[in-house]
Amino acid sequence: MQHIITALVENRFGVLANISSLFSARGFNIDSLAVGETHDPSISRMTIVVTGDDRIIQQVMKQLNKMIDTIRVSDLTEEAHVERELMLIKMGHTPKTRAEIVQLVEIFKGRIIDFNPRDLSVEIVGSSDKILAFMDIMRSFGIKEVARTGRVALPRG
Amino acid sequence: MQHIITALVENRFGVLANISSLFSARGFNIDSLAVGETHDPSISRMTIVVTGDDRIIQQVMKQLNKMIDTIRVSDLTEEAHVERELMLIKMGHTPKTRAEIVQLVEIFKGRIIDFNPRDLSVEIVGSSDKILAFMDIMRSFGIKEVARTGRVALPRG
Repeated sequence: MQHIITALVENRFGVLANISSLFSARGFNIDSLAVGETHDPSISRMTIVVTGDDRIIQQVMKQLNKMIDTIRVSDLTEEAHVERELMLIKMGHTPKTRAEIVQLVEIFKGRIIDFNPRDLSVEIVGSSDKILAFMDIMRSFGIKEVARTGRVALPRG
Repeated sequence: MQHIITALVENRFGVLANISSLFSARGFNIDSLAVGETHDPSISRMTIVVTGDDRIIQQVMKQLNKMIDTIRVSDLTEEAHVERELMLIKMGHTPKTRAEIVQLVEIFKGRIIDFNPRDLSVEIVGSSDKILAFMDIMRSFGIKEVARTGRVALPRG
């Protein structure tokens, strides 16, 4: 089962390496990871999406909790939460396909952030389902590059 | 100097741990990191923002390039590129502050994605400068939680 784990950690050198080793030592591949400073620059938040056996993920969470640089860890999978992802995607375009691409970008509430005669780049935000749906539709136009942030999440209420 | 490095890597178990160890072995703290699948599920893109001496960053890039799971590494710092970041932020609100918060969210082209009588959550996308400016303005309303994706970037053209 896929889990979405959020951890507040000290913004300190080596913490990311320690945490990613902890997952890889258990044989987990991390599906996505996003880490950035919070409103307190001494504290970072990591959002980790990982697929694996529930019991082993619980063990990893316990180990995460024990780490000296960990402030708080939560598994949001079963909790009410909001989650979003950002994707930048670059496609080829021709005079023939341009109007259709622009219309699809509007339907998905994306924004064109770069444009030249050969290709254009779009910024799009939403659930991973929405991001994947947009990416699939763009395949027929020729995707050149994709950069996804991975999911971030906050508990509701 | 702050560098924004983008790496295409095999989407394989342990790659993230290896790369983050490479940075921490050199004493670099990673300012932000985002990793997610590309349009080819066997390939992930990592975007790493790191501050450090230019010469040592070049050495780290060389080592990254030598790793068996690395497909391509670029330092976008000096290249024309587009970059964006996503932040979810939760603030307290009262009948007195609500209208002002909603107006500020509109000015920054954010979206309210969760709302209850005590607090509300906003999704906001832009350059890191814009994200930081919005966060600073929100401080006076009482920030409760922040989740940032870190920056992602694509070369222009």
